[in-house]
Amino acid sequence: MVMGGVFDRLEQAVRGKRSPLVLGLDPRPERMPTEFRGGLDGITGFHAQLIDVLESSIVAIKPQIAFFEALGIDGLRLYAETCRLARERGLVVIGDVKRGDIGSTAEAYARAHFAWADILTVNPYLGDDSIEPFLAVCREQGKGIFVLCATSNPGWTRFQSVEDSNGRPLYLRVADAIAEWTADDSGRWGPIGAVVGGTHPAIFHSVREVVPRSWLLLPGIGPQGARPRDFAPAFAEDGTGVVTPVSRGLASCFEPDDPEWVQRVEQQAAALIAELRAGVPALDA
Amino acid sequence: MVMGGVFDRLEQAVRGKRSPLVLGLDPRPERMPTEFRGGLDGITGFHAQLIDVLESSIVAIKPQIAFFEALGIDGLRLYAETCRLARERGLVVIGDVKRGDIGSTAEAYARAHFAWADILTVNPYLGDDSIEPFLAVCREQGKGIFVLCATSNPGWTRFQSVEDSNGRPLYLRVADAIAEWTADDSGRWGPIGAVVGGTHPAIFHSVREVVPRSWLLLPGIGPQGARPRDFAPAFAEDGTGVVTPVSRGLASCFEPDDPEWVQRVEQQAAALIAELRAGVPALDA
Repeated sequence: MVMGGVFDRLEQAVRGKRSPLVLGLDPRPERMPTEFRGGLDGITGFHAQLIDVLESSIVAIKPQIAFFEALGIDGLRLYAETCRLARERGLVVIGDVKRGDIGSTAEAYARAHFAWADILTVNPYLGDDSIEPFLAVCREQGKGIFVLCATSNPGWTRFQSVEDSNGRPLYLRVADAIAEWTADDSGRWGPIGAVVGGTHPAIFHSVREVVPRSWLLLPGIGPQGARPRDFAPAFAEDGTGVVTPVSRGLASCFEPDDPEWVQRVEQQAAALIAELRAGVPALDA
Repeated sequence: MVMGGVFDRLEQAVRGKRSPLVLGLDPRPERMPTEFRGGLDGITGFHAQLIDVLESSIVAIKPQIAFFEALGIDGLRLYAETCRLARERGLVVIGDVKRGDIGSTAEAYARAHFAWADILTVNPYLGDDSIEPFLAVCREQGKGIFVLCATSNPGWTRFQSVEDSNGRPLYLRVADAIAEWTADDSGRWGPIGAVVGGTHPAIFHSVREVVPRSWLLLPGIGPQGARPRDFAPAFAEDGTGVVTPVSRGLASCFEPDDPEWVQRVEQQAAALIAELRAGVPALDA
């Protein structure tokens, strides 16, 4: 058991920076500043500069591994390098990998991905034995996972909000399971957080009630339309307990040929943080 | 629209070989024959020889990408090479990746993984827009997906068998969705199959009824305890429509220092096929 796991580090970072902002990295070469075009080294250079510019505004990065995998076999090398750059700066790395498989396979995923990231997103569909191997590493090494609960996309209604015979939607049954899986973990924060789409403010309160000791990852700011002013009920009273990733809204908030793209990113981060602080007064205390 | 997609190829292969057997590849270096120890090239060599030995008994390979990812950054290179070896022999490649994410990310996964595999396993938890990008590629390029319906692991009961207010379990709602998503696709087989644990024979009939035009992937033979003699209700009447992956039960069915490991693998494949034919008489017609 490691004292002070990654969620305690997140708490300190959110308090210290008065910001829950997470830089999402979905490398899209065609959306990068022209100066970084041309090959994987350019992408690494772009990520390094983004991290440089945003270091004091963000608490973590969230690389979306799909976009790295889409770059071909060397994409994983770039993913590892991006994770390394961020950890070197003391930023938490949330590997957005959404893995989930039977026990023996989940073990292999945990071994693979916790080598790069501090926290992983995990899909709950396969149930308890698909979560346990990740949880074992969390407890041994102070790592964490965010289990998908209610995702930010329109399709979430197909299965996640289906109600059982007692009227309880699946996403709350996932939250119930998180509470059960972490009931014996001590400390303020359990090792399992939940992904709850920032696009669904109506459910923040009910999820927060079931998992008071879980960090919530609230995606959806940007093209998906989540509004930071709706986020307060998801936070703990002291303004911690939530992180808000922004991907396209930061890393692609400018035209590729804009020579002042760095300033745009800085301004955009400042605007987002101001909006979050306005919505969640405890953040600004 | 491509005429004769991958599921038509599977039908021809199962008919021609009178076998639904799929070689699962979960590279575990410590379980390989000693002659192949020492680095990733050894694993490629082992996979090449397994494919050589089993070519006439199997219709596809199913590499489990978690075990390749666990080999570090070069693991993906090995994954791609393993896929290439199998496709060169005319075998179908089922990439067991269980990906699933919001639309824009699912697009990136589809782009990445259909470059290597003919069929991908996909997790349905995120709903319609997480499936559509895969489906678009299936229709354009004759590829296929197996959507997780009822997985073979003990944990499947946590969420997959939860019943809605009408008593319909989630796994059948996934099957309902597959039928809906493919209602307009022509041909004998739709582009979406379903993963149904071979460990749950009691549900084969109800799933088959909902998705008569879907191939079913039935994992669980081996340590998980699925019995081929229970499999008949999952098959179509003509003995097609099902593939049965076997991983540890073939690729690790011998002691690493056994000089006759090739014969063990051959015997084991023959025994499995005999068991499947005994359980599904139409296979042997």
